Amino acid sequence: MTEQALVKMNEEQIASCLESHSEWVELNNQIQRTFEFADFEASMKFVNEIAKYAQAVEHHPDMLIRYNKVTLSVSTHDASGITYKDFELATKADALV
Amino acid sequence: MTEQALVKMNEEQIASCLESHSEWVELNNQIQRTFEFADFEASMKFVNEIAKYAQAVEHHPDMLIRYNKVTLSVSTHDASGITYKDFELATKADALV
Repeated sequence: MTEQALVKMNEEQIASCLESHSEWVELNNQIQRTFEFADFEASMKFVNEIAKYAQAVEHHPDMLIRYNKVTLSVSTHDASGITYKDFELATKADALV
Repeated sequence: MTEQALVKMNEEQIASCLESHSEWVELNNQIQRTFEFADFEASMKFVNEIAKYAQAVEHHPDMLIRYNKVTLSVSTHDASGITYKDFELATKADALV
């Protein structure tokens, strides 16, 4: 993790990163994606994988579990906005599905 | 679980049950409570306990995890409203904290 990861991105930088994270949207100063799974058990498995990663990197997304759907929403509180750290989490989450 | 557990409650019945579940509120045709924990790890422990119960009784609340806070929202889809089954889940959740 470089210091740059914690600098708030501008709209141009966010748009550029969203191009390579096409399932993610910018919403309310966060980035968000809803993942769909086969069932509740698969949702919980995913959530626990994300939780493990979140603890390791000390960066915790909001996670909404609705049976077979999980919505992740993430921003960087310390930067009051979206940073590269959020896209690192998005990359990790995308790689899990 | 009796058949009665799956009958949609009327407002009077809901109000009566909310009296004994004072931390819960009725919102958007669901009952909801936000639990606060010491940290993220405690939130995840709670969520996994609820998940285990949800699978056992085949009744799954929506769960929103925000670091040390977990919001449960539950209704009974088959009854298009709030049933005794939802309050059984509330009772279980309350007993975990």
